[in-house]
Amino acid sequence: MSTAAPTPRSRVTRVPKRGVYDRATIDAILDEALIAHVGFAVEQQPYVIPMLLARVGDRVYVHGSTASRMVRKLAAGVPACLTVTLADGLVLARSAFHHSMNYRSVVLLGDAVLVEGADERAAALEAFTEKLLPGRWDEIRGPNEQELKATRVLAMEVSEASAKVRTGGPVDDEEDYALDTWAGVIPLALRAGAPEPDARLAPGIEPSQAVLDWAAARGW
Amino acid sequence: MSTAAPTPRSRVTRVPKRGVYDRATIDAILDEALIAHVGFAVEQQPYVIPMLLARVGDRVYVHGSTASRMVRKLAAGVPACLTVTLADGLVLARSAFHHSMNYRSVVLLGDAVLVEGADERAAALEAFTEKLLPGRWDEIRGPNEQELKATRVLAMEVSEASAKVRTGGPVDDEEDYALDTWAGVIPLALRAGAPEPDARLAPGIEPSQAVLDWAAARGW
Repeated sequence: MSTAAPTPRSRVTRVPKRGVYDRATIDAILDEALIAHVGFAVEQQPYVIPMLLARVGDRVYVHGSTASRMVRKLAAGVPACLTVTLADGLVLARSAFHHSMNYRSVVLLGDAVLVEGADERAAALEAFTEKLLPGRWDEIRGPNEQELKATRVLAMEVSEASAKVRTGGPVDDEEDYALDTWAGVIPLALRAGAPEPDARLAPGIEPSQAVLDWAAARGW
Repeated sequence: MSTAAPTPRSRVTRVPKRGVYDRATIDAILDEALIAHVGFAVEQQPYVIPMLLARVGDRVYVHGSTASRMVRKLAAGVPACLTVTLADGLVLARSAFHHSMNYRSVVLLGDAVLVEGADERAAALEAFTEKLLPGRWDEIRGPNEQELKATRVLAMEVSEASAKVRTGGPVDDEEDYALDTWAGVIPLALRAGAPEPDARLAPGIEPSQAVLDWAAARGW
């Protein structure tokens, strides 16, 4: 895999110590995030839209309806920005100024391209389902011709990506450590509740092990 | 409060039944979300950056360092898009095509403006802290002159906002209900772990009730 070397526009300039560029970190953040925020501009007006994402190797995929204004715009080949952010904690400092959040984010710049090859499209669609729930692809009906026609898959390269990560406790001004204010971190994570069966589920159909495992691993 | 009536550019065109425009729904989503994804363009290239947000009445605030490239750009008065998304659940259908997520999102279009009035800046800074943790403002040292100089506060109006909400179980093709695949929803939510004290916290300083309440209300 390529190294995601920072370019002038993808380099983290603000608090540069938080900037990381190694592909393992970038990939792990992209793979954990369920939702990306994808930005594109139409006549100077930027739009930022939430989309599911899935990574396969050096490409990050998003998808949408053939009828979607956004998908049509992106598929025409315009500069885009795909950003994912994972909230990891509230950072409660002794001063208002040093309050912060722990987070991991990736910003990916580049043109989105329409994926036209049947094999790559199929692999990307499988990746979306497997991203939501590993093992799910083998449990469900795959896409038919009509559904494939109704879906557009777009790809962006991971090559121009940067990650930003904040971890750890608050960093207060030296004199504020004398205050008697509690300071620390409240950890945050996206967690899962117990699976809720569809109202039309036939009696006797139980959640698969894949469903139970996913929910249990993230249970609240 | 004003009604957020859809304009042609903020109207939800894709799956219009998911589009909602009432201010109560929009405000509730903006207030629950800790992080906004803010988009702006520099010479055709869009950037999407995660930022903390706080709403006061009809304005949504973000803030950043006076030294930040992004904050300087936004403060110059450019079209922006502020989007928040709350992930509420995996929607597991019987076919790949109908897999989805339950979510609530708000897209807010408009120019960001630099907040220059001292009173509004002070109110916004208090709102950021109170947004992270209600009750925190009274527990901590407020901003001093130097910190106020180092911080820029930007505002966007809620007037041109739209929300999109998906709830409920999967909607499958009629013939797929005969499949013996489990289908339903795995609920998701951002949850909190137990508060972790700062390594430099003096002995005997316990978390305040505000800290304990916040974490308990979202406990996993």
